[in-house]
Amino acid sequence: FSLNLAADCNAVLKALQPIFQEQGMTETVHNWEDHGYLATYIQKNGSFANLRIHPHGLVLVDLQSYNDHVKGREEVDQLLNKVEERMKELFHGNIKRVKRLPAILRGGVIDRYWPTADGRLVEYDIDEVVYDEDSPFQNIKILHSKQFGNILILSGDVNLAESDLAYTKAIMGSGKEDYTGKEVLILGGGDGGILYEIVKLKPKMVTMVASNIDQMVIDGCKKYMRKTCGDVLDNLKGECYQVLIEDCIPVLKRYAKEGRMFDYVINDLTAVPISTSPEEDSTWEFLRLILDLSMKVLKQDGKYFTQ
Amino acid sequence: FSLNLAADCNAVLKALQPIFQEQGMTETVHNWEDHGYLATYIQKNGSFANLRIHPHGLVLVDLQSYNDHVKGREEVDQLLNKVEERMKELFHGNIKRVKRLPAILRGGVIDRYWPTADGRLVEYDIDEVVYDEDSPFQNIKILHSKQFGNILILSGDVNLAESDLAYTKAIMGSGKEDYTGKEVLILGGGDGGILYEIVKLKPKMVTMVASNIDQMVIDGCKKYMRKTCGDVLDNLKGECYQVLIEDCIPVLKRYAKEGRMFDYVINDLTAVPISTSPEEDSTWEFLRLILDLSMKVLKQDGKYFTQ
Repeated sequence: FSLNLAADCNAVLKALQPIFQEQGMTETVHNWEDHGYLATYIQKNGSFANLRIHPHGLVLVDLQSYNDHVKGREEVDQLLNKVEERMKELFHGNIKRVKRLPAILRGGVIDRYWPTADGRLVEYDIDEVVYDEDSPFQNIKILHSKQFGNILILSGDVNLAESDLAYTKAIMGSGKEDYTGKEVLILGGGDGGILYEIVKLKPKMVTMVASNIDQMVIDGCKKYMRKTCGDVLDNLKGECYQVLIEDCIPVLKRYAKEGRMFDYVINDLTAVPISTSPEEDSTWEFLRLILDLSMKVLKQDGKYFTQ
Repeated sequence: FSLNLAADCNAVLKALQPIFQEQGMTETVHNWEDHGYLATYIQKNGSFANLRIHPHGLVLVDLQSYNDHVKGREEVDQLLNKVEERMKELFHGNIKRVKRLPAILRGGVIDRYWPTADGRLVEYDIDEVVYDEDSPFQNIKILHSKQFGNILILSGDVNLAESDLAYTKAIMGSGKEDYTGKEVLILGGGDGGILYEIVKLKPKMVTMVASNIDQMVIDGCKKYMRKTCGDVLDNLKGECYQVLIEDCIPVLKRYAKEGRMFDYVINDLTAVPISTSPEEDSTWEFLRLILDLSMKVLKQDGKYFTQ
C-alpha cells in the first residue's frame, strides 16, 4: 500500500493485527525510533507474515508459506482481502496504490524464474526440465515452456526458445538477403537455428564455427531444440554445410591468411563471451578481435550481421 | 538454497547467524516443533532479514530495505556472498540449487510489475508513466518501456505495446490476405493498430466499432500510441474508414437486419469483455452472441479473424 500521507504506524498496526491474530498467528513487534514498525506473525503450521509499516506512508505485507502448509490460494486471497478492506476503512481515499504480486515459488523441482540480462525478474510458464547438464564451461539447461516451446538457458542466461524464429530471421537480414549460391560463415550459433534456415536457401557453402565450449550445447539442441535446428546438427557435414568444433579465432586467422573470403559473416556468439584463450584479456578486446578478423574474410561487397 | 538432504536447522542457524550479527543486526528466533526455524535480523536503519530454515532441506533468505537505508546493491551482494560461502562450507556438494532473485521494488512512483493473464510475475523496464486515467469502466495506463515502447495496460492487464506490430499483422491474417477493395468490420481495436494497418492496403471501406467503454482508450492511444495507430484516430472518419463509438452488439444486429455484408470481420475485443448490457449474462454467452452475429454479416466467402 502506497499512501498519499504519512502513516500513523501504531494505528495501522492496531487496525491490521486482529486480522492476523484471528488466524491464530502470534505476533512479535519491533518498533524503530525513526523507521516505523515490523510486525511478524507466526502460524503454528510454519507459515508467517511480515507487516512492515514505514512512517512516510508505505505499508508492506509479505506472506511466506510452505506448500503443504496452505489450504490454497483462496485462503491467502481472503486474508489479503481483509487487510485491503481494513486499510481502505482506515485511509479512505488516501491510498495511492494497492498492488498484489503473484506468489514467488522457491525450492520446487522446476525453477520458473529466469531474470533478463538487465536484471529484471521474469517468470516463465516452465513445466518440464528437458535437459540439465554441466559442461566444464557452463551449465546447459533446456526447459519446456507452454508459451515458447523448449528454451535454451546457458548458465542462467536465456539464449533462445523454439519460438524465436524471429531472432534467427532478423540476424539473417530479415528476409531481405539472397543466400542462393553464397559463401556464408557463422560464428557461434550452437543452437543450429541460423544454419538450418540458411541451408534451406541453397547457399554454395555454409561454414559454422562453434567452439568446443558449445559441444554440449550442440548435443542438447540437436536432441531437444529440433524446431530450431531441424536435422542439421545430426551430422557435422552436409551437401552445402560444415560445422567446425573449434575456437573461432584461430579459424578466422587461418582463413584470413589463406585469403578465403565470404559473402556473409554472421556473428551469433553469446553477448558475454566465455573466454578460454589468453590473448582475449577483456570482453571488448575479444569483440574487437572478432570484428577485425571478420572484416578480413569478408568480400568487398560482403555483409556482416550480428546482434 | 535447496539441499539434497535434510538440514540440521540449528547447525544452519549457528553457521549463518554471525554473518548477520557482524552487520550489527539483532536476532529474534522462532523455533517450531516440526517446521524448523525463522530467524529475523533487524538493522538499526530499518532494514531486516528473514532466514527461514525448513528441516527437509530448504533454506530461504529474504532481505528487505528501504531505498535510503542501503548503501547499494554491492553491500547486499557481499552479504549474500558470505551466506553462500558459509552454506557451501557447511554442506559441501549437497546443495542442489542456489538461486538469487533480483530485488522486487515496491512503493516507487513507477510500478514495473505487470503479471501476465496466467498469473506469472513479469518485470518490465518501465521508465515513465505516460498516461494514467480512470474511466467509469476501467483504469487506463500507457507506460513507456525501453524495450517495447509505449505499452497500453487496461486495469492491470497488458494489452498492446508499440512494438507489437506482429500481433496486429497476425490478427489480419499474417500478410496472406488481400484487403484491396474489401469491406472490413473491426470489433473493438481501440488502440487503432488494425485500422491503421488495413487503411494502408486500400480497402473499399473499414468500419471500426469501438464501444464507448473504449472512448478514453482511443483518446490515450491517439496521443501516446502513434507508432501503433498513426494518425488514423485523429478523425473518426477518413476516405475509406469510419469509427463508430457504439456498443458493437446493436450495430451488428442493425447490419444483420439491413443485410449489410463484409469480406472480413476482425474481432479484437478484449479477451475478458467488460459487459454493460443486460442481455450478456456470461462471458461465454457474450462471446457466442458476437460470433453468431458476426457470421450473419459475413459474405459467404468472407473471413473471420480473432485472437
